[in-house]
Amino acid sequence: MVKHALSVTREDDFAQWYQAVIAEADMAEESGVRGCMVIRPWGYGIWERMQRLLDDRIRATGHENCYFPLFIPLSYFEKEAEHVEGFAKEMAVVTHHRLIADGKGGLMPDPEAKLEEPLIVRPTSETVIGAAFARWVQSWRDLPVLINQWANVVRWEMRTRMFLRTSEFLWQEGHTAHASAEEARDETLRMLEVYRSFAEEDLALPVVAGEKPENERFPGAVETWSIEAMMQDGKALQAGTSHFLGTNFAHAQNIRFQNREGQFELANTTSWGVSTRMVGAVIMTHGDDDGLRVPPAIAPWQIVIVPMLRDTPEDEAVTAYCRELQAALAKQSALGEPVRALLDLKAPKAATKRWGWIKKGAPIVVEVGGRDVAGGNVSVIRRDRLYREDGKLDSRVVTRDTFVDGAAAMLEDIQHTIHAEAKARLEANIERGVTDYAGIEAFFGKGGKYPGWVEVQWARPTGADLDAVVEKLKALKLTIRNAPMDAAPADGTCLFTGKPAVERVLIGRAY
Amino acid sequence: MVKHALSVTREDDFAQWYQAVIAEADMAEESGVRGCMVIRPWGYGIWERMQRLLDDRIRATGHENCYFPLFIPLSYFEKEAEHVEGFAKEMAVVTHHRLIADGKGGLMPDPEAKLEEPLIVRPTSETVIGAAFARWVQSWRDLPVLINQWANVVRWEMRTRMFLRTSEFLWQEGHTAHASAEEARDETLRMLEVYRSFAEEDLALPVVAGEKPENERFPGAVETWSIEAMMQDGKALQAGTSHFLGTNFAHAQNIRFQNREGQFELANTTSWGVSTRMVGAVIMTHGDDDGLRVPPAIAPWQIVIVPMLRDTPEDEAVTAYCRELQAALAKQSALGEPVRALLDLKAPKAATKRWGWIKKGAPIVVEVGGRDVAGGNVSVIRRDRLYREDGKLDSRVVTRDTFVDGAAAMLEDIQHTIHAEAKARLEANIERGVTDYAGIEAFFGKGGKYPGWVEVQWARPTGADLDAVVEKLKALKLTIRNAPMDAAPADGTCLFTGKPAVERVLIGRAY
Repeated sequence: MVKHALSVTREDDFAQWYQAVIAEADMAEESGVRGCMVIRPWGYGIWERMQRLLDDRIRATGHENCYFPLFIPLSYFEKEAEHVEGFAKEMAVVTHHRLIADGKGGLMPDPEAKLEEPLIVRPTSETVIGAAFARWVQSWRDLPVLINQWANVVRWEMRTRMFLRTSEFLWQEGHTAHASAEEARDETLRMLEVYRSFAEEDLALPVVAGEKPENERFPGAVETWSIEAMMQDGKALQAGTSHFLGTNFAHAQNIRFQNREGQFELANTTSWGVSTRMVGAVIMTHGDDDGLRVPPAIAPWQIVIVPMLRDTPEDEAVTAYCRELQAALAKQSALGEPVRALLDLKAPKAATKRWGWIKKGAPIVVEVGGRDVAGGNVSVIRRDRLYREDGKLDSRVVTRDTFVDGAAAMLEDIQHTIHAEAKARLEANIERGVTDYAGIEAFFGKGGKYPGWVEVQWARPTGADLDAVVEKLKALKLTIRNAPMDAAPADGTCLFTGKPAVERVLIGRAY
Repeated sequence: MVKHALSVTREDDFAQWYQAVIAEADMAEESGVRGCMVIRPWGYGIWERMQRLLDDRIRATGHENCYFPLFIPLSYFEKEAEHVEGFAKEMAVVTHHRLIADGKGGLMPDPEAKLEEPLIVRPTSETVIGAAFARWVQSWRDLPVLINQWANVVRWEMRTRMFLRTSEFLWQEGHTAHASAEEARDETLRMLEVYRSFAEEDLALPVVAGEKPENERFPGAVETWSIEAMMQDGKALQAGTSHFLGTNFAHAQNIRFQNREGQFELANTTSWGVSTRMVGAVIMTHGDDDGLRVPPAIAPWQIVIVPMLRDTPEDEAVTAYCRELQAALAKQSALGEPVRALLDLKAPKAATKRWGWIKKGAPIVVEVGGRDVAGGNVSVIRRDRLYREDGKLDSRVVTRDTFVDGAAAMLEDIQHTIHAEAKARLEANIERGVTDYAGIEAFFGKGGKYPGWVEVQWARPTGADLDAVVEKLKALKLTIRNAPMDAAPADGTCLFTGKPAVERVLIGRAY
């Protein structure tokens, strides 16, 4: 029987296991500030890799990055509060701009320095970017405006979970304005596809792209699209959204342009975002009972070389051998980039470091001892095939040259293997045979376990009919995730209303 | 006589000229939020290039990036206020976490949602990172800790100027902890050198690296070092600082470790940062009366291709020719990276676009018309040599192949040319012959013009003697910038005290 590196398994307690991975992989920790986390180098390095790869895709589709203010005047939200019913109010409010001594040895906000108008720490930059668009857009020649921002945002959260729901989080928010509804809708779907391919190819994260039902739309949006990923506990995680806003926001924010015929028109706008939540999705999709497994494309270090040093004169030869190995690997190219290889010369013992990197999920760990040096070999551990049949750690001795020559292919194989594994799990856990509500109840059963999702046909009800569906599902803690773009056409009746179905939707428990 | 693209020249009104460059180059604009700016794609693209190049240098010296919370509890500053005399109090204070309707059609902070402890929007992350170091550091094996953060910070400013002094700004802050004072001091100087080489090589910004006088030290620091750049109006701009903090911060924050002998010791720490101020330094160093000139290493686009389209069927051939040109340029490598070439197909007329890119400071603008296509040519404008002797725009027709083959060398030449120009100006405007205070008064003269800096010898006075020097200089709006590392040894008497001099310092008017 294998003894795993974590003290809690996914099977035992998935939520505890998730926290254990984050702690044992040194990804993040509590900060002492309510709902905010410290993202440590390994966690932040993964986010930076995600940023780099997604940013390249966002630029390749013609978008430019900008930066807008952290603070938004209260009055901007008054407009939105009028305009938007689902207006969220849990926000950090700045009311003073100075601290003074409180006379009791402490500090307090200076009553003399109260702001005339409170400032809100941006929960999203929709309003302030809309105001800029109104300034920038005068003529059809100014369109489209295609911009993106990488930023921190704050939404006050009562119950937080690292990466999944934190009061402060990091994200990108794209905002665009177009001359026609058609163009804006094309943009919405183009960015959904950017997210889908980024998730599948870079994060090895199989996702289902589709349209959210009306009740799950971003407030004010005409259409909201999402990519949904399935976690190993069968729950759904919305990993990215893309909104077609029609002229709703342009109307509220007065984004108008003179068309080719000289008439004034409202622009059509879109917005789309992904956040540090994606890091949580990677953990819950690829992690195992030994910790995280990072897809090579987003691993800060893809290959970690651990020298087995013994505080003897031979250490020098081992270190020199490792340096040459590192240099040889850095000359290789995998997944379109130079291989990222680290030589870990820190103080702890080799076995401690080995297990540290396994828990962090470095795709390949290479150990080098005196015997390896003498034989021109290395000892290789693949994170995606950690154990042999007999339950022992699968560390394989190969010649140095064989390893170097095959390193890029091995990384690419790991990327594909963990994607294929997750993809097979996603497909196996979508139940498509359910045609009545009893079937939904039976599938999800009792006891808080979620075996996956069901795909059902429905008539896309609206108004009170939709509310009834939402309420009924809520009793089972379920929601409609989205209507997959690539689902089969509807050919039956609506599970909820009995009317002819118009599309298929996925139902599951969500994070 | 040359008619320049900006309506105000550096000579006429430097401050107005600075604002004009920012506006005409579409770099940034007022945001409607006091003291915060919107950084537009061209300005933000330059900052992103700076980030990328500096980040590479910070990583290459062994540092890792992390992310710490935006908010810091008030109590963290109480510790610091006790500890640090120069404690700055102008900070954004979050007191509430919810908005509610105010009953008059507007919104207000919800009195029910008042925070028990106010949160401060980070003005720097010293305290929160120090608290993390105290958790992370237990043993000598945990040292050194070498981390860096890219973040937005807020310091409430009453008088703001874009990029130079804004309430919110973007920066990197490095924080490190070491087992010995010597190691921490080496780190301080290593990062100063990283900043110096980054400024000189990437930003083409000649700087003087040296130690700040005692009165200009970061509160709590043992030593503060800076790089100082000279703007075209003769003023100094502190472009980066590196602080050796000794055990002062470790003491306040309880960063202790068990040494190899098993005894507990305080760590020695450092911190160092540069900010979006650097963008202001680039404008005021390299800009001219036609707008910005961006050093090729940090230009978002190094070469911009402007097709001259006439709404005729020939346009297609011109566009195709331009696309091939762009592809050929992208295969070249300049300054260690692939050439960044843009094909500008936007709607405005070619002449408007040409002047737009000149004002933005793209290093090379290439125009292509039907005649160029027919002859296999391109028309090339170098931003650093904009006009011919006769005052006309210097647009040179060369064969396409000649241009492509020489493009990388041309970009490298532009990088070196603008660096050499700024370096010559810096050297010409440091006056080294001043030995008495009358000489300082004479050099800086009257009327608010600042011809440069003076380098004088001094005895490095402290306490009341230093205060007297600082006050005297203040009357002329002057400050001691730093004691240059590479200045000649002192060989005379102190200009202020008449005692034997121990070093040379630079004096100037600062931004």
